[in-house]
Formats: sequence, structure tokens, C-alpha cells
Amino acid sequence: MNGGEGPNSYTHNSKQQRKGSYRAKVLLSNSIQEKLTVENKLNTANQQVFRIADLGCSVGPNTFASVQTIIEATELTFKTQILEYKPPEFHVFFNDHVGNDFNTLFKTLPFDRQYFAAGVPGSFHARLFPNSSLPFIHSSYALHWLSRVPIEVMDESSPAWNKGRIHYTNAPKQVGEAYATRFAKDVEFFLSARAQELVAGGLLALFLPAVPDVLSNSDTVIGTELDLLGSCLMDMAKEGLVSEAKVDSFNLPLYYTSHKELKELIGRNEHFTIERMENLNNDPKKHVILPKPSMRA
Amino acid sequence: MNGGEGPNSYTHNSKQQRKGSYRAKVLLSNSIQEKLTVENKLNTANQQVFRIADLGCSVGPNTFASVQTIIEATELTFKTQILEYKPPEFHVFFNDHVGNDFNTLFKTLPFDRQYFAAGVPGSFHARLFPNSSLPFIHSSYALHWLSRVPIEVMDESSPAWNKGRIHYTNAPKQVGEAYATRFAKDVEFFLSARAQELVAGGLLALFLPAVPDVLSNSDTVIGTELDLLGSCLMDMAKEGLVSEAKVDSFNLPLYYTSHKELKELIGRNEHFTIERMENLNNDPKKHVILPKPSMRA
Repeated sequence: MNGGEGPNSYTHNSKQQRKGSYRAKVLLSNSIQEKLTVENKLNTANQQVFRIADLGCSVGPNTFASVQTIIEATELTFKTQILEYKPPEFHVFFNDHVGNDFNTLFKTLPFDRQYFAAGVPGSFHARLFPNSSLPFIHSSYALHWLSRVPIEVMDESSPAWNKGRIHYTNAPKQVGEAYATRFAKDVEFFLSARAQELVAGGLLALFLPAVPDVLSNSDTVIGTELDLLGSCLMDMAKEGLVSEAKVDSFNLPLYYTSHKELKELIGRNEHFTIERMENLNNDPKKHVILPKPSMRA
Repeated sequence: MNGGEGPNSYTHNSKQQRKGSYRAKVLLSNSIQEKLTVENKLNTANQQVFRIADLGCSVGPNTFASVQTIIEATELTFKTQILEYKPPEFHVFFNDHVGNDFNTLFKTLPFDRQYFAAGVPGSFHARLFPNSSLPFIHSSYALHWLSRVPIEVMDESSPAWNKGRIHYTNAPKQVGEAYATRFAKDVEFFLSARAQELVAGGLLALFLPAVPDVLSNSDTVIGTELDLLGSCLMDMAKEGLVSEAKVDSFNLPLYYTSHKELKELIGRNEHFTIERMENLNNDPKKHVILPKPSMRA
């Protein structure tokens, strides 16, 4: 991801993600108002500090928009439920990989923010915060990034070797399975860490791009685009512009889960229950632009 | 301050500060073991998270050395005092101005650290953390940086106008007074913010370069060096290399307090008591290299 604030920076090239976050705003706000109840002990009068973590925050305007939504919805919920309401102080932790451009993130923090801000470097596939320290964790468009490329797809001797492609779209089923296994492990690590960091009854709001249950990855825009990109690199290899071995060794650490698969993975973790699960875009047709890979030519 | 890890970076040019922090280590460790008692309620068994803030942390090896000292001394103290000792989890907040190179700070965090780390951008002359959220705050070689240059010293119509100098050494007394007034206000803002952030009975460890009570700033190494630097800039102005107005408008926002003055300033704040106050270097002669400004030539 490109740091800074230049023309090629992520800050100025994250409109697609912003589009998603606008649609997510209503769902996020409604869910907080519905689930942040007196019963789950998150909004007692003693709660002077309300800590929020945004995992995989990246950098740019989208980062701050989600946090603002969470704070506004939380305040609204508390106000409605508590008679002698005294607003808590919000402490927001922006997390991303060590390589994220935190310098730019910090420089672009909203000047009029109503919260204390901190940056937290590190992988969200491991622990990032002390035990029982957060009542609310948010992660948007981040968990589809795998912790690493599955090793099998780079192993020539494996049936999952992903020769001539950079992703699992239209690849042998073993490649897709290797990606799915890696994703399952990553979700396990992610949830296991969050279960320790969240206070009892805490909320985890998770947004991630996914493939509708009715479609395979090769029928989706992103799947087809990645296949096309891989195909271009192979064409470049054939023309001698890059080595074929280099293309073979390059694989994108991205996985697009489905509603059904994610439900099952979360179900495996004994510490979480799914309180609400929705598609932001319910029209599967919107995912499709190229119905057949043969149209690529 | 230069970021990054290059030859001119602060990371590779902070040996003087490191020297100070070696001497400070023993004092810091001893003070924690002496003051972090069961009575001040900072080490009860319920205290699962022990939050530490390092204000004006900068970047480089010195930053992490102090934090390590604090954690080791805290653990040792808790172990000694609590029968069924269960180590707390440490959450360390590294604070400095927004312009600090947090990217480098994060990249150089000790790999084997036994604490959760976060970066906090912003001025320590204002609030940075939620109310009653920290049992320990540390700040080393930072508070002598003023929040800004006193406005009077840049005002041609003021008796405190600092013409032909870049600091208050050997300046009219009004210049020194303007600096002292700014420092007093800064210390007031600093302590007022910390009083809110510290939990009741919390500890603030403050290290800062100072002038011995028996000496004036013009008798010290740093005072004389800054005077010499100002004099060089004026020589350059006379040779037409820089404009004199530019030199006149440039003043270093640094103030060297004394033991006596600092004691008085802390005494003004009703929320703090001085538990221990020591000079790291008790030999005033070590501060002197040039006894008279006339030796500059």
C-alpha cells in the first residue's frame, strides 16, 4: 500500500473502499444501537473510558469515518439507555501492519476529534492489546488479507502449486483449498486474539469483501480481474519481460470468503456468537462483469 | 529532529541523551521500587493492565531503554510486595509531536518486548490520554522544549525583543524573563494534563536538563554554545549570507530551569507532591567550559 498523500497514495486511491464504508455506516450504527445494551455491561455509569480498536485501519479518510460512526452511535445508545448520562471518554486505537504509513495517519487525524488517538503497529493475527481492555473492535476490508501466501502454492512438488497464476481463480481445486485453509487458520488466530482483548460482552464489528454463496470466485469481478492480471504477467513472461519463475512464485495473499464459510468459521470459536450478519450488497449480479473466463481474450 | 535511520538521523545521533539515560536508569529503578507501594494502590491484584506513557519519546534506542527499566523495576517491586504475584500486562504509550518519525519508531520496536506498544501523536502540553488511565508517566529530556518561542522576544516594540541572539544567554533580563514565563506556563499545562491522566497515587518520573542553582545560564556549556551559535549567525548576517532580520526572528524554544525554580513550579500544582528530586550530575564544574563570554573570540 502506498503511503503519503501523493497522487498514487492509498489516501487518494481508496474510493472503492469508501463506497463500501458509506453503505456499512448505516448497518454499523444500527447494530451498535441494537446490541450495545445495559445488559452486556458495556455502558454502566462506571465506564469512564470507552476503548475502540480499528484493526487494519490503513490510512486516509475512510479510517476516520468509521470511527466517527462508532462514537456517534455509542453516545446515542448510552444517552438513550442511561438516565444520568455522563459521556465516557473515547480512546481510539488505529492498528495496521508496521509498514503502514502511521506518520501520514497521525498528520491527517481530524483536528476536531472528540477522542484520544493512538497508533498500534502489528499484525491483527496476533495479540495487540492487553486482556479484557476493549469493549468494541472494528475491522473493515482487512481480514481478507491473509497473514501470508499458503506455502503449498509456491511448492513445485505440491499438487497445490499455482503455476502460471497469481491467485486461485480458475486454478486447480487444491490451490483454492490451500487458500481456504490459510484463511481458516487466520480467522482462528484473529478471533482467538480478539476473544482475549475484548471485555466480556464486548462487540466485534467485522466487514469484509466476500463472494455470494451462489457464486464461485471465478464468477466475480475481483476474481476475474485477478485472473486477468495473472494472465497479463504470463504474457509478459512469454515475451521475456519477466521470468516465468518469478510469476509462478508470485501469489496474492487475498481470500474472498462466503457468507456460509465465514459463519462456519466463527461458529468454531467458542467465545463468539454471531449477533447479526448481513450482505452490504444483496444483488449477486452486481458482482459479475465477465461471465466466462474465455471472454478475457 | 531528523527521522529515519540514516547517518544524520536522531537515532544515530543521540549519544549525549543516552549518556544521561544510563545515569538516570539507577535513579529511575530505585525510585520505582521505593515509591510503588501497596499503599498507593497501584499494584493491587486486580490491576491486570499496567499502563505506562513515555512523553516526548523521540525515536531511537534511548526510547526503549527507559521503558525497559520501568517495566523491570515495576515487576520487581510487585513481586516483592505481593504474595500471590500474577504479573500484569504492560501497555506502553510512546508519545511525541505529530512530526516525530513514528514509522521508524514502530519499525525499531524491540522484537522480544514484553509489552503491548502504541504510539500517541500530539503535544504533551495538552491532554493525550483519558482520565485516570495511567499509573505511571515518564518523560526524559523533553520538557525543556517550550511549546513555542515566547512572542515578546520576536516583537520589535517589546523590551524583551531578542535582537542579535537566538537564545536568552547574555540577553537583557527581559528576554530571560519571557522564556521563564513561557516555561512556567508550559509546566502548568503539562502538570494539569498529567494530573487528570494519572490514576490516584500515580507516579510521574521527570528528567530534564537544568542549570545548577549556583550558576546562571551564561556559565553553562549549553548556554555558551547557543550564544556562540547565535553569534556565528550574526557574523553570517554581517557578511550578507543571511538577512539580519531572519536571525533576529529566529529563537530556540529551549529553556533550562534550575532545581529551585522547578521545585517552585511543581509546588504551585495542588495535585502533585515531590517524592524525590535529585541532580544526575552533582558537580557544577562539569557544566562549565567557558567562564566568560569574552573568551568566545
